[in-house]
Amino acid sequence: MTAGHGRAVHRIGFVGLGAMGLPMAKNLVAHGFAVRGYDIRAEARTALSAAGGVGVESPAGAFDGADAAVLMVVDATQAESVLFEGDALPALAPGAVVILMATAPPQRVAAIADRVRAAGYGFVDAPVSGGVVGAEAGTLTIMAAGEGDAITRVGAVLQALGGKIVTVGSKPGQGATAKAVNQLLCGAHLAIAAEALSLAQRLGLDMDQMLDIVTGSAASSWMLKDRGGRMLEPAPPVTSAVDIFVKDLGIVLETGRDAKVALPMASLAHQLFLSVSGRGFGALDDSQVIRAYQALGERPVP
Amino acid sequence: MTAGHGRAVHRIGFVGLGAMGLPMAKNLVAHGFAVRGYDIRAEARTALSAAGGVGVESPAGAFDGADAAVLMVVDATQAESVLFEGDALPALAPGAVVILMATAPPQRVAAIADRVRAAGYGFVDAPVSGGVVGAEAGTLTIMAAGEGDAITRVGAVLQALGGKIVTVGSKPGQGATAKAVNQLLCGAHLAIAAEALSLAQRLGLDMDQMLDIVTGSAASSWMLKDRGGRMLEPAPPVTSAVDIFVKDLGIVLETGRDAKVALPMASLAHQLFLSVSGRGFGALDDSQVIRAYQALGERPVP
Repeated sequence: MTAGHGRAVHRIGFVGLGAMGLPMAKNLVAHGFAVRGYDIRAEARTALSAAGGVGVESPAGAFDGADAAVLMVVDATQAESVLFEGDALPALAPGAVVILMATAPPQRVAAIADRVRAAGYGFVDAPVSGGVVGAEAGTLTIMAAGEGDAITRVGAVLQALGGKIVTVGSKPGQGATAKAVNQLLCGAHLAIAAEALSLAQRLGLDMDQMLDIVTGSAASSWMLKDRGGRMLEPAPPVTSAVDIFVKDLGIVLETGRDAKVALPMASLAHQLFLSVSGRGFGALDDSQVIRAYQALGERPVP
Repeated sequence: MTAGHGRAVHRIGFVGLGAMGLPMAKNLVAHGFAVRGYDIRAEARTALSAAGGVGVESPAGAFDGADAAVLMVVDATQAESVLFEGDALPALAPGAVVILMATAPPQRVAAIADRVRAAGYGFVDAPVSGGVVGAEAGTLTIMAAGEGDAITRVGAVLQALGGKIVTVGSKPGQGATAKAVNQLLCGAHLAIAAEALSLAQRLGLDMDQMLDIVTGSAASSWMLKDRGGRMLEPAPPVTSAVDIFVKDLGIVLETGRDAKVALPMASLAHQLFLSVSGRGFGALDDSQVIRAYQALGERPVP
């Protein structure tokens, strides 16, 4: 049994209805797919039902007879639990394709793919970039890797979720690798923006003016433009948490370790995120990585 | 004697006709200023003369009777040498304003300003961002700091050179501080782009595709867009050298040291640039900081 056959994908089982997953599942509903979704939180299941999908009580209930399974869970461990610990995977329709969209280490994604394919299902490694805004708008960048027939079969699913779908390879794990490269840049850019802005603050520069200069010069980055203003607020709204980059930079370093590639800048950035999380601020907006620098610069009472 | 008086600025003495300075001096000529310029290289002096200025044999010759002096030299030491070691400074017209546009440490800029003002001249700290492209087009970002009357007096000079003139403070050294913040971001972004792209290369990703993904996502930076392609070439043309960032990140760290501000990401980025320069590649294009990662990842002969 391969992923290339079977009827057109219509029924989708979706697991992980969080800040990213719920709007993604809603987009699939809006595109005419029959979506059954599971999340550990009852309110997320209710929200999916209210949007025209069906919130169900278990992963097996979501996967029951589905042509495609979308996993937007937190990490590889959750994905393994959903797929291999219960009776969800065998509930899929024959020839169904599993789409893993969570950020996970490439070698673990490859191992998950092997087990899914051994069970007779197709597998597409398809992590995303674009955050909650991209998830809601259906404009995510999707880095897809898998056998051509599996990717082809779920093409309409990916198109409903993303604005830019790039097939980065035929081997599951290559999508995860591309995502790791992407997250290395994102996480390190956040740490650098924090370092630069905290230097400017300590030296007494006008911060609005400074942000205007560096977001309009060769010093600019997407993260500096998006998070720079929030770094200067003590308690900004959370769009993505510090602990997401604790996790994602951890995956970046695991990717480097498995391939024996030294990543000194990413390693240092990870330590800075860890220090903020370790002080109890892991659930704050990721712009608050600047608290690492505030702690480094704290003055003793004279 | 203060900088506020005197006739409108017409005669300009320009020292430092390098990759940045020569096009800047030419822009001043094009805007109707009478420009006398000095550089240690005869061909630079000849080029200025060919463009309608006057190439002269010494800093004193450039400054002779000038209403404003522009210094676009390599560093603070060169600026001190030009201003204080010869007879150039007293050659300026009464009430003339010295504009220091080189990148230098804030405390040294402040000290230079004190000496210039003690000699009866105005001083504007005015480092730039925008590179050779900005210098040629007259679109540099200029971070100006100095007393209001001095800045006002040379306003037309700055307007001829820059597309965005931001007065960041009234004390010389504040422009240098803003430039240090800017260069921290630029230099660290270059190192991170190199780290991410070398990881992607080692893991066998399609590099054109990878660049397309990360320059279109939250992972993007100005440096990644501008230098990313050149990082993948073994010998790209030089637009700005590795040694410029060895110098500029050194100034960033000196700025942090003087203010007792820890800058771990900038410090690590500086070490990576230093390692490339130390291996003999300091004159190469700054995109070649990626050679630090190539060296880190070199495989022993099996």
